[in-house]
Amino acid sequence: MQPNELTALEAISAIEAGNLTVEALMSACLDRIEEREPEIAAWAYLDRANLLSAARWHEGKPPMRGVPVALEDVIDTTDAPTTYGSFIYRNYWPTTDAACVTRVEEANGLILGKTHTSEFSGSYPGPTRNPHDVRHTPGGSGGGAAAAVADHMVPLAIGRQAGGALIRPAAHCGIYGYKPTYGLLSLSGVHHLAESLDTLGCFTRSIEDIAFLLDILLGGRPAPMQEFEGRPRIALCRTHHWDEADETTRACIERAARRLIGAGMTMKEVELPRGFDFESSLEVFAMVYEFETARNCPPGAGIAAEQMSSLLRDMCDRGMAIEAAEYRGAVQRLHQWRGLVEAKFTEFDAVLTPCAHGEAPLGIAAPGKYTFNYLWTALHMPALTIPAFSGPQGLPIGVQLVAPCHTDERFLSVAREIARHIID
Amino acid sequence: MQPNELTALEAISAIEAGNLTVEALMSACLDRIEEREPEIAAWAYLDRANLLSAARWHEGKPPMRGVPVALEDVIDTTDAPTTYGSFIYRNYWPTTDAACVTRVEEANGLILGKTHTSEFSGSYPGPTRNPHDVRHTPGGSGGGAAAAVADHMVPLAIGRQAGGALIRPAAHCGIYGYKPTYGLLSLSGVHHLAESLDTLGCFTRSIEDIAFLLDILLGGRPAPMQEFEGRPRIALCRTHHWDEADETTRACIERAARRLIGAGMTMKEVELPRGFDFESSLEVFAMVYEFETARNCPPGAGIAAEQMSSLLRDMCDRGMAIEAAEYRGAVQRLHQWRGLVEAKFTEFDAVLTPCAHGEAPLGIAAPGKYTFNYLWTALHMPALTIPAFSGPQGLPIGVQLVAPCHTDERFLSVAREIARHIID
Repeated sequence: MQPNELTALEAISAIEAGNLTVEALMSACLDRIEEREPEIAAWAYLDRANLLSAARWHEGKPPMRGVPVALEDVIDTTDAPTTYGSFIYRNYWPTTDAACVTRVEEANGLILGKTHTSEFSGSYPGPTRNPHDVRHTPGGSGGGAAAAVADHMVPLAIGRQAGGALIRPAAHCGIYGYKPTYGLLSLSGVHHLAESLDTLGCFTRSIEDIAFLLDILLGGRPAPMQEFEGRPRIALCRTHHWDEADETTRACIERAARRLIGAGMTMKEVELPRGFDFESSLEVFAMVYEFETARNCPPGAGIAAEQMSSLLRDMCDRGMAIEAAEYRGAVQRLHQWRGLVEAKFTEFDAVLTPCAHGEAPLGIAAPGKYTFNYLWTALHMPALTIPAFSGPQGLPIGVQLVAPCHTDERFLSVAREIARHIID
Repeated sequence: MQPNELTALEAISAIEAGNLTVEALMSACLDRIEEREPEIAAWAYLDRANLLSAARWHEGKPPMRGVPVALEDVIDTTDAPTTYGSFIYRNYWPTTDAACVTRVEEANGLILGKTHTSEFSGSYPGPTRNPHDVRHTPGGSGGGAAAAVADHMVPLAIGRQAGGALIRPAAHCGIYGYKPTYGLLSLSGVHHLAESLDTLGCFTRSIEDIAFLLDILLGGRPAPMQEFEGRPRIALCRTHHWDEADETTRACIERAARRLIGAGMTMKEVELPRGFDFESSLEVFAMVYEFETARNCPPGAGIAAEQMSSLLRDMCDRGMAIEAAEYRGAVQRLHQWRGLVEAKFTEFDAVLTPCAHGEAPLGIAAPGKYTFNYLWTALHMPALTIPAFSGPQGLPIGVQLVAPCHTDERFLSVAREIARHIID
């Protein structure tokens, strides 16, 4: 196995055992990027000479020991330009690092570079292609980050979800994606898209790496994951969008459920509570998303409008046309729904549900829809992609797990237990 | 009455009626500032010549018609330096405006300047003095903004509360202060202090101005306030800190309650629910506040430590020493408390409770404590200061109203009804 194929924790163990140097790890990652980048186009910025020099002189101290980390280009960095995927910011060098960058550097990690995002992480796609089949999208907006991790260019990447920007690209690229409970990780220095939804999260190739990076991003000392104790109580929630998932996806979720029952877990089919007005949930979410996005990106939309895609401009126009009173009503409803859904799911350790409609769509013109993501993002619940299956085109199909708010640590433990039983 | 003494809506009416020009209003504000600033020290930055020129050429279009607005210096501006009250940022000119700045400018308001804040809006004070008695603090961190509005230098100011930085300075300066429901107003481009608590809000000299500015900051078309319909249901909540308030403050709150009963409102004394662990609430809040603050300000604390006050450095050290697991436990408890308290207060239109321990403390060395604010900030509930009374030293004493989350519009209507009956 090449060093760039190791997970972050495997690489750290190898460095601690004296079997790997920070420089060799960085070289392997950079070589992989050099080989594959022309096809994949994952990177918005990286500085090869500087990185090699930084790795050569890195002392490899704990806890991160010089392991490289990619940043979705919505995260402010002083050592690299930050474009937010927008032409407006093509030459923007922020004057301060985002808090998450400081956390990685304090923990002796190395920032490898910035990965492509869609325009202001919206619907106008970045140039990245799916490493499993370059004719397909990696999903968006975290497609650059997800492709880089999936293609063994870097073991860890940090991104941000407001719709489905972590969970869906992870599913399409066949890796783990994690969106913690809303608010758990600092968004200081991260571009604001839709504030009441924006959540910092990550892409990895193992659940242990998620738990590790989460501790780092909280500024804590990473601790080994606990084994989940007891019999996991799982809810199967198809949601009212179930019929929009393709046959393979529906079969995969049901297969996962059967395997978990076979492993002795309790499984109960759960519908969203009655107070939850199914028919309007997507509209209510879209209203909040578009209202906030229009007001946040870019600031001063009027002046910059010529440098925006017509897709984004139209979306901003729709968002600006939403009345403040409508918006207030929409956020109030989301707030009420959070209470209702939380009460319903509190007796479960995890909820099993689809990540996406199916395999990664053909072409890179559209990064995909948030149909199977918006609900959990709106509800502020932690969500995880497990890269469990593959579909008829040979592309990955993920399984999404969701859990009650602020149970992140316990959730990752039960997710590891679940992953052991369902991954093909 | 001088133009600078008008509320924003009064000034707008005068401009619409042709009785006042944008230039005359700006001149009156700037003259007032010139006269009083040497004593009050409210302003971190303003550019008199530019402002006069901008006002002269301003078309006075609706809805704001050139009315000036002050910004607490935690809000990014491209036309003015942004210091966050820190020596580290003494020469910092952000490259983008905060979303709230764009909203004001799009609505044809004029940004007058930046007002002093405490260091990273923490405990190390700014230089501002209380306009009612310059030997006293105006409160913090929004002290500069509150003093400027109270002293008729500007009718509107925007600030941010993570502890009690809007409610308490408003009370000490004898004006209205408003902290909306957490998350309602975009914090894009506003310094992050403690993310799970930070809320954008404002200082004004009338409740109507709050409702107006709230609509502007939501990017909406301001609508006249609705009269509150029905009989207001008020909860009197002394909280477990009641005995820490001085005698005058306690008497003022009780006087307010009697006046509201006299006005025919229903009044019920309510204790915080049992699931709420009184003894530890301040500690749990402080843990979240210090953990997040230490990780957000300043990014790269290590390098900048020499340019921080020892007060802030000690606080950051305490915050960084908090383990991630402790923090997770603390945010989980706050989350649970939100549900418990929300259920308790849902049958009330407003909660009546103190703003602060008493009148503004003597001296400007300490901006005051968040004893009577932290709970409502942590619970994400909208809160308002009504400048109702004064104390034995002739300094203002406010009354705090709080309401269930996401009832802001209704809350302002009932607050206006309440204010009519209790203001001395």
